[in-house]
Amino acid sequence: MTVQHAGCVGIVVLVASLWANGAFAASDREKLLTDPGVYGTFAAYSFNDDWGRKEGATRIALLTVLKGVVEQHREKIAIDMYLLRGLSDHADILFRAHAHEMRDIQKFLVDLQGSAFGKQLKVAGIMHGLTKRANYVPGFPDDMKADLKTASDPGAKPYAVVIPIRKSADWWALDQEPRAAMMKEHTEAALPYHKTVKRKLYHSTGLDDMDFITYFETSKLEDFHSLILALEKVKEYQYTRRFGHPIWLGTARGLDEIIEILAQ
Amino acid sequence: MTVQHAGCVGIVVLVASLWANGAFAASDREKLLTDPGVYGTFAAYSFNDDWGRKEGATRIALLTVLKGVVEQHREKIAIDMYLLRGLSDHADILFRAHAHEMRDIQKFLVDLQGSAFGKQLKVAGIMHGLTKRANYVPGFPDDMKADLKTASDPGAKPYAVVIPIRKSADWWALDQEPRAAMMKEHTEAALPYHKTVKRKLYHSTGLDDMDFITYFETSKLEDFHSLILALEKVKEYQYTRRFGHPIWLGTARGLDEIIEILAQ
Amino acid sequence: MTVQHAGCVGIVVLVASLWANGAFAASDREKLLTDPGVYGTFAAYSFNDDWGRKEGATRIALLTVLKGVVEQHREKIAIDMYLLRGLSDHADILFRAHAHEMRDIQKFLVDLQGSAFGKQLKVAGIMHGLTKRANYVPGFPDDMKADLKTASDPGAKPYAVVIPIRKSADWWALDQEPRAAMMKEHTEAALPYHKTVKRKLYHSTGLDDMDFITYFETSKLEDFHSLILALEKVKEYQYTRRFGHPIWLGTARGLDEIIEILAQ
Amino acid sequence: MTVQHAGCVGIVVLVASLWANGAFAASDREKLLTDPGVYGTFAAYSFNDDWGRKEGATRIALLTVLKGVVEQHREKIAIDMYLLRGLSDHADILFRAHAHEMRDIQKFLVDLQGSAFGKQLKVAGIMHGLTKRANYVPGFPDDMKADLKTASDPGAKPYAVVIPIRKSADWWALDQEPRAAMMKEHTEAALPYHKTVKRKLYHSTGLDDMDFITYFETSKLEDFHSLILALEKVKEYQYTRRFGHPIWLGTARGLDEIIEILAQ
Amino acid sequence: MTVQHAGCVGIVVLVASLWANGAFAASDREKLLTDPGVYGTFAAYSFNDDWGRKEGATRIALLTVLKGVVEQHREKIAIDMYLLRGLSDHADILFRAHAHEMRDIQKFLVDLQGSAFGKQLKVAGIMHGLTKRANYVPGFPDDMKADLKTASDPGAKPYAVVIPIRKSADWWALDQEPRAAMMKEHTEAALPYHKTVKRKLYHSTGLDDMDFITYFETSKLEDFHSLILALEKVKEYQYTRRFGHPIWLGTARGLDEIIEILAQ
Repeated sequence: MTVQHAGCVGIVVLVASLWANGAFAASDREKLLTDPGVYGTFAAYSFNDDWGRKEGATRIALLTVLKGVVEQHREKIAIDMYLLRGLSDHADILFRAHAHEMRDIQKFLVDLQGSAFGKQLKVAGIMHGLTKRANYVPGFPDDMKADLKTASDPGAKPYAVVIPIRKSADWWALDQEPRAAMMKEHTEAALPYHKTVKRKLYHSTGLDDMDFITYFETSKLEDFHSLILALEKVKEYQYTRRFGHPIWLGTARGLDEIIEILAQ
Repeated sequence: MTVQHAGCVGIVVLVASLWANGAFAASDREKLLTDPGVYGTFAAYSFNDDWGRKEGATRIALLTVLKGVVEQHREKIAIDMYLLRGLSDHADILFRAHAHEMRDIQKFLVDLQGSAFGKQLKVAGIMHGLTKRANYVPGFPDDMKADLKTASDPGAKPYAVVIPIRKSADWWALDQEPRAAMMKEHTEAALPYHKTVKRKLYHSTGLDDMDFITYFETSKLEDFHSLILALEKVKEYQYTRRFGHPIWLGTARGLDEIIEILAQ
Repeated sequence: MTVQHAGCVGIVVLVASLWANGAFAASDREKLLTDPGVYGTFAAYSFNDDWGRKEGATRIALLTVLKGVVEQHREKIAIDMYLLRGLSDHADILFRAHAHEMRDIQKFLVDLQGSAFGKQLKVAGIMHGLTKRANYVPGFPDDMKADLKTASDPGAKPYAVVIPIRKSADWWALDQEPRAAMMKEHTEAALPYHKTVKRKLYHSTGLDDMDFITYFETSKLEDFHSLILALEKVKEYQYTRRFGHPIWLGTARGLDEIIEILAQ
Repeated sequence: MTVQHAGCVGIVVLVASLWANGAFAASDREKLLTDPGVYGTFAAYSFNDDWGRKEGATRIALLTVLKGVVEQHREKIAIDMYLLRGLSDHADILFRAHAHEMRDIQKFLVDLQGSAFGKQLKVAGIMHGLTKRANYVPGFPDDMKADLKTASDPGAKPYAVVIPIRKSADWWALDQEPRAAMMKEHTEAALPYHKTVKRKLYHSTGLDDMDFITYFETSKLEDFHSLILALEKVKEYQYTRRFGHPIWLGTARGLDEIIEILAQ
Repeated sequence: MTVQHAGCVGIVVLVASLWANGAFAASDREKLLTDPGVYGTFAAYSFNDDWGRKEGATRIALLTVLKGVVEQHREKIAIDMYLLRGLSDHADILFRAHAHEMRDIQKFLVDLQGSAFGKQLKVAGIMHGLTKRANYVPGFPDDMKADLKTASDPGAKPYAVVIPIRKSADWWALDQEPRAAMMKEHTEAALPYHKTVKRKLYHSTGLDDMDFITYFETSKLEDFHSLILALEKVKEYQYTRRFGHPIWLGTARGLDEIIEILAQ
């Protein structure tokens, strides 16, 4: 394993070449991130005690392995990474993976956990969801639909938050109509934050112990806080049995950035 | 332990011979998987940190031990294996064992955990259930009975999900009639998914902290998700006190396939 | 520690002599198991990772220590052992100890945990109860009393189940009369299983976080399952706040049998 | 560290001299244990795996360190010790410390945990309370007050039980009058056990997650059980949200006795 | 790493020079601690077993690293430290960090956890909140506003308590008016303790699993206890779903004082 002594320059070169090989078309990634019928897995890990004892060169070699595993699977699945350390309990890094088949995500995570890098990790939590066509939006008034189509503010949204939600049995027992009415109120409450807080919804029922995974990106955490506060005030919130536990708060990072931080 | 240096060819030969010796009649297995009065145990394990540090040859030797233990007990009990890693929290592999006597299952798991392979494992969870004749089906209309008898779609169903359920005290306090009426509604909601999602029910009351273990196999996880969502909308769901916690999601794998994945 | 190399023959001789010295009159044991005013402690342990790494001779030496500790304390207290491994989560062996004074049980468990064998153990759970004269039976009809006096079927009852129970505040707030009426219904529901499932009740209030520990022995787990199901259908069950968590399911084993299994 | 080879005679001599230096007036201790406005901390510890591997001489040296830490702090605070091992889950020893300032208790526990002995310990739980003048007693009838003043039976009370309690929001929302009426009923239910079960009450609100810590000493555990059962039957119990979790059951031991037991 | 043998004099010199370089204007710190729109993170850690095994010189070297990390980040963020050991479960030290951007706090904690010192730590818990302008105070009567502006008693307030709070869905569903009325009652109940217990409020909704983090400083723990008891008696408390779990109780300490205590 000659890379172990390669130092920083060597690793950058290697990384650059992997990136070149490992890319899959940006349009494929875009489709996975916007299409319905796509599976999204959130897998959070913490480092075990061994990691802390590794010296710099060994760390770099292990991070090269991480790079390789991620790049290899990026040919089929969309992988995003987040730094949770310092902001979330008992978790250091988070992977968000999108694919048409859950098996492909499993293959990625099995490869990751079985790799020399993965042996430094403990699973902090794994959650799954499915993207679906909007359930209630078709019945919303046209102006609300238009508002929902407005693009969010451009620019980086460094903060990411993952909040799993479980609804009560009473919620599911309601007819579609009262549920739609409550979701309209929910959406109205959320609209003022539409530009600064990006949201994505995953349906989890049966795939894990949640009903939904809600995912947020923002550069203004205060707006995100105000959004959640507004959502706790609408009637639909009273049908929520579990909100968070855990909430994962972190910062979105490119693979290279994660590697750079972890290398230190 | 000469096998430790035998490499991949050696292990394959060994494995093939064990397989030949270890078989028990497919018809016996079929009976265990369909008869009432059979005990089913779900035992999930994760690997401890030692496993990650084993080198390839040692791993192969240990996996040979796993193979031996499973084959030996397959003479009396039906054993299925699932890869949970990457899809479930804190569990890597799941064994589902069916036998006429729980003692035989205990003997298998004691041998497994006490083996050189088992010393690499931590118990992630153990649940037990008993298969019984359908409780409510005899009272269902004939066309519903016919629908329930329709075979599920042929072909592999790679995904498996295990969901333990505990009913509320109010459920058990109901008379048989209102419970049967609700189970009819439950069954009607499930019928559209009958062909693509295979179900099996285990009765757990007293054997562990659940009342039921529900087991699902499918190739279409989206259909499975829709099935569970449909079941959360019927009245009977309101009598559910615990649903999941944990939900184990994994992929069904043959013993050889498990060994191949774990050998890497 | 010469015994470490003594092998199987040596251990059997040693064991036989300890047994001879360590016996206390069977009638004393019988009294402890049937009298009111006796304390019963259920202490479950799992093995730590060290145990798995011990070689055969070391294991046998350590099991000899176990044997010695148990035999020594059997002069004063009644000790039963159960193999939980493979059937219960996170616990491998269970001791049930009966004594007139809890201090004697503490002395046994302190000696056990402090012994060379005990250093291989982690505490999985400890629960205590007190045997008392039947509270409601004196008011039952004579034929029910007669039925309760019928001896259970002879023969081994290899399976043992321990279920802790906590009643709600509402239960304790009831007058004796309605509680007695509900316990009569409870007892009627249980009677059909009287012959195949042996029961023993321990009162726990204040001694641990439960109100009762219910202990069952059977050779027919299916009957035990039906019994618990029947008990969940009576009105008294609605006053149960905690049922199980954990349920310990295992098989009753003699000390020698436990040693033989653990030696492997 | 010459003491490491001193053996049993040496340790006893050392211990005797520490005791002589470390005493503070018995009257001070008595005041701390009876005055209002005193802080009481319950700190339970279990031994880590290292402890089990220490040889006898090392253990004795470490226990000498324990002795030194306790004696040094006994000049300012009252320290009692209990053996929980064998009777309580996941805890081996319990310290009860009384002082006028919590900082003095922190100093003791920081010294303890930072000592060579403390490095063998894991924290099992820490709870704090404050002693206060009786809240409801002044309004009780005179004969009840007299009964409460009766001394408890003389003689050792070897068993100690610690039960934390949290009341519901409804309890605190009640006016003083109905609360006093319920506490009168509570006290009446407890009076029959006044002589054989000694009680002490600590107010915890804000200091930890409980509202009260109730502490009991008895030589008759059966009476203690009957007392708690009686207290669960009065109306005030229905305003209890948490009772125990954990309950710590142990035996009161002098420092020398603890050292003797742990030395083995 | 020559400092490893420098002993106590050397470390003090080094510390003094770091302090001189690392200061940022006291006014900036004051603003962070009083302005609205500031993020506050509470990060509690316990030491792992390795720490206990380090010798004095190594400890001092590691504590110098802690000093360096804290001083470096004090240029941008306000960092306070607390000793939890002996007073709180499973946590030894607590950092409270205030910054205008959560990213700066993450950078500090990532640096801390990744440092040679941080490798001795396990995360015990991380919570975040946002300071905001008072929500209900503007509607309070003028005399109450004046009372709230009274400065708290001068002098050190060594004890610090952190209590996270989650309100029920019913609370958020209330209109502003009834909530304001209840908060007025809440504030009236708290006023008598205004001078001896300093309070600070952080809004957490969405940032972690709480709605609020309440932070208290006092030299009179008994007053703090009385304050919380008073707050549990007002109507608003009935809308509290979670109060504490954990409550962190500790003593405020300067960085040098923490280092001195941990060096021992």
